[in-house]
Amino acid sequence: MIDLYYAPTPNGWKISIMLEELGIPYTVKPVNIRAGDQFKPEFLAISPNNRIPAIVDLKPADGGGPFSVFETGAILIYLADKFGRFLPTELRARSVVIQWVMWQTSGLGPMLGQHGHFALYAPEKIPYAIERYRDEAARLYHVLDVQLGKTGAYVAGHDYTIADIACFPWTMTHKAQGFTLDDYPNVKRWYADIRARPQVQAGLAIGKFVKEPFDEEARRNMFGQRAKEMTGKT
Amino acid sequence: MIDLYYAPTPNGWKISIMLEELGIPYTVKPVNIRAGDQFKPEFLAISPNNRIPAIVDLKPADGGGPFSVFETGAILIYLADKFGRFLPTELRARSVVIQWVMWQTSGLGPMLGQHGHFALYAPEKIPYAIERYRDEAARLYHVLDVQLGKTGAYVAGHDYTIADIACFPWTMTHKAQGFTLDDYPNVKRWYADIRARPQVQAGLAIGKFVKEPFDEEARRNMFGQRAKEMTGKT
Repeated sequence: MIDLYYAPTPNGWKISIMLEELGIPYTVKPVNIRAGDQFKPEFLAISPNNRIPAIVDLKPADGGGPFSVFETGAILIYLADKFGRFLPTELRARSVVIQWVMWQTSGLGPMLGQHGHFALYAPEKIPYAIERYRDEAARLYHVLDVQLGKTGAYVAGHDYTIADIACFPWTMTHKAQGFTLDDYPNVKRWYADIRARPQVQAGLAIGKFVKEPFDEEARRNMFGQRAKEMTGKT
Repeated sequence: MIDLYYAPTPNGWKISIMLEELGIPYTVKPVNIRAGDQFKPEFLAISPNNRIPAIVDLKPADGGGPFSVFETGAILIYLADKFGRFLPTELRARSVVIQWVMWQTSGLGPMLGQHGHFALYAPEKIPYAIERYRDEAARLYHVLDVQLGKTGAYVAGHDYTIADIACFPWTMTHKAQGFTLDDYPNVKRWYADIRARPQVQAGLAIGKFVKEPFDEEARRNMFGQRAKEMTGKT
């Protein structure tokens, strides 16, 4: 019913976890982002930003033909509304969930992504950039810790929602990025809780299909040089 | 009816423009981000991420007490749904708008923000970082240009929506950041169209109240050192 265009990354895991949580049938369409699959025209037609994940809903609720959705936050909202789960309909509770999904997609995700790039992947170590994004990542972990301390349960309140599904996969990078959750006790408690969910484990197990080495071509495809060539801009 | 916690920045303008487009009464609550107002506890209670803009709806539709909303994407969706404008209710059209709002909040905004930081504000010029974000910004302008070429009108289709309101203020940085819209003819056409809207001009005129120089304290408050001190992490 749902085709999932996917690679096993924090953004990809958001949606594989969501689909596992929903317990609905879906087909994984592997996108080999190291080989540059994301720049193929057939993928662009589904995901105009060249990025995974994206979905195609083969049976949208309006009865019409297939409908594609890109951007993890938009996919989570679309699926949550379609199946009536993990996103309340009540005015305030709904907005709180959307606020924290937006916080993840506009802050936690992009900034942990930048920190990961400069701390782990960039060919030169640039202290200013590493420090800038380490500080911002630490600030964001602190914001999340305060919020989880307030709710005492999940990111957006008492219930598990798409805000948790959005935040969790990026917090999985904490060790590789040199953070310890001992500094964020509420995040640590929440992290263990989410990590233990069988549906989360099932989502994380999807797509162990990317095996090739992280070589120069992979670096080019993943860090924008190909995109630069495509746009013809410098 | 709406309190707008605001400073005149691209993210702030998204919401001042939205409120002007809605034509509803609102009160501007200036947040002097150069002086560090965003770190005060009373602001944190409204905006747990320490960032402007945020709103407080003094008369939410459920008849209850004041309700605060942070994150521009969440504010736009909240206001659009409350007033039934700029965000369709039909399944596909609604999702397309949300997809492009998410694209702006998770991509165009953060990445133009990083390019602006390294190209214009950072105390040292770091070629690797400047090039990284210039390439990514150029890629994003290209994606927007292709999309606007497809629709022939607005970001998410034939109608002006919160996707346009989200994208426009960040594209206003193009000149300062060294881009020309001549490279992106569809963006150029759309930009002139949006720029000419009286409601947009009214939104941009809000809050010419920030007058103090961009000094060392401003730099500290805006670029994370204060936030670092608050979290106690390095």
